[in-house]
Amino acid sequence: MSVDILIERIIRLQNPSVMGLDPAPQLIPPHLLEQAQGQNPFERAANAVTLFNRGLIDAVCDILPAVKPQLACYEQLRHEGMRAYYDTVRHATQRGLFVIADAKRGDIGSTCDYYAAAHLGEVELYGERLPVFDADALTVNPYLGSDGLAPFMKTGKLLFVLTKTSNPSSGEFQDRLLEGTPLYRAVAERLAALGREGVGRFGYDNLGAVVGATYPEQLAELRRALPHTFFLVPGYGAQGGGGAEAAAAFDGRGLGAIVNSSRGIIGAWKKTGDGRHFAEAAREAALAMREELRACIGHPIGEGVRA
Amino acid sequence: MSVDILIERIIRLQNPSVMGLDPAPQLIPPHLLEQAQGQNPFERAANAVTLFNRGLIDAVCDILPAVKPQLACYEQLRHEGMRAYYDTVRHATQRGLFVIADAKRGDIGSTCDYYAAAHLGEVELYGERLPVFDADALTVNPYLGSDGLAPFMKTGKLLFVLTKTSNPSSGEFQDRLLEGTPLYRAVAERLAALGREGVGRFGYDNLGAVVGATYPEQLAELRRALPHTFFLVPGYGAQGGGGAEAAAAFDGRGLGAIVNSSRGIIGAWKKTGDGRHFAEAAREAALAMREELRACIGHPIGEGVRA
Repeated sequence: MSVDILIERIIRLQNPSVMGLDPAPQLIPPHLLEQAQGQNPFERAANAVTLFNRGLIDAVCDILPAVKPQLACYEQLRHEGMRAYYDTVRHATQRGLFVIADAKRGDIGSTCDYYAAAHLGEVELYGERLPVFDADALTVNPYLGSDGLAPFMKTGKLLFVLTKTSNPSSGEFQDRLLEGTPLYRAVAERLAALGREGVGRFGYDNLGAVVGATYPEQLAELRRALPHTFFLVPGYGAQGGGGAEAAAAFDGRGLGAIVNSSRGIIGAWKKTGDGRHFAEAAREAALAMREELRACIGHPIGEGVRA
Repeated sequence: MSVDILIERIIRLQNPSVMGLDPAPQLIPPHLLEQAQGQNPFERAANAVTLFNRGLIDAVCDILPAVKPQLACYEQLRHEGMRAYYDTVRHATQRGLFVIADAKRGDIGSTCDYYAAAHLGEVELYGERLPVFDADALTVNPYLGSDGLAPFMKTGKLLFVLTKTSNPSSGEFQDRLLEGTPLYRAVAERLAALGREGVGRFGYDNLGAVVGATYPEQLAELRRALPHTFFLVPGYGAQGGGGAEAAAAFDGRGLGAIVNSSRGIIGAWKKTGDGRHFAEAAREAALAMREELRACIGHPIGEGVRA
């Protein structure tokens, strides 16, 4: 089961964190942008992204269980950027990392089938069934209701449904009361109902939720209310959430969540130099984050579950 | 103003409809799939999509004001498919069509800036400012609140925010009462408030809404409630909505909305033959849709506004 694969890696590495691969142009070390070749500025920048991501992945693949590429960063480099995305997923997979595609997709009917195929599944072309971008997990948007989720669920892979997001205006709709319950909570309860069928060996199902570290109260509330829902927790680091805030996402075993840091890891080189040592800086930042989360959990992650 | 450009084309062609360019593999005529060349099945299928879309665009560009490519169909053909999407936008623009990118994107902070740049704006690479996919309008998802909309609004282009979608489960969250008001209505009112600043010469602003023809009551309610919000109306044709249902989207001048048909136009060849005459079949279907909508409106579109 998809969620079990991620949890097993988290336990093995004793690290419940994920590196966000959000290679905005200003985060790419200048020497990589210069060094990269291409037939046009898009291809050249996309090739710089590929070099950057490969370096980052190689630097952390023995200490981190997962990476989370942010699709927007690749889309803004046109189809050339999407090629860099494809290469990134493949390289991360080859290095043993679990890949969470942060695409926040959501659509209806057959269109939703196509998104599911694109990001998690396969397409049939010229008599062959072929994987497309082939990530391990995907972030999805719930506004369209459960027929916007079903095609993704059919892939059998892990989903993270936007529930309580980390941004300042997330409360504008998500916190408003829907027949007495905040909307984010109504979404969470719907997920719990839909996911009920398949719980894996750690007690979690494949229908996870995105809950921001910037709202620690709601994070703690949802952790209590949703014992089978695995959380993806953005908002750590650059967005202002710390380890203490994120810690509310974990269950008593230190399981149940994975905390994301993007700029804090991939942009760590900006504090130390001109970017020539971006990989070392990222590794240092990833180790520091691991230590902070471990300290907040306070005991071995998954204690007891392997007994 | 972006919405004015679309409305002017609708009036000039007396046609408030848009062709959805959703080239799922089963809608592509077999001879195009065979004829297309490529170094792998993705590139070959993507080249078939390009041939198909160019043929469709050339067949309707004198009778339709707009096209609406559905991003999921291109993403499922990997980066090769995104290249076909890029070509499609460019070709449609060259033929004078207004391009609505149906991507249903939504994210927060800088990530949302990147999506806005990718689909509507420009990026700066190697000292140059360059357009990326460069559509004229975009569908977006409101779940993240207004800081998930602001970066798109800054582009100055037309947005269609998912409000009451056409799918069967759209009511699951959208119809539930949020402090006494259905969520879709709360979203609509937020849009009206955000869009208030800039109304164009026809009384509409750049912050439009997606409202499905499959829910004619809500469509009529929202038309009355939101006099400055331009609607994109899916659900006509294959999804079950007819001209009578869609007609509730128009104001007294026959303005205020554009109705989409995808399969009904681009897949019209399936009823008539082997696909060799797909372009003629699409044109016939587009003309029939135009006549049906004109008949429902019952008077010249935009009557009085040019006076």
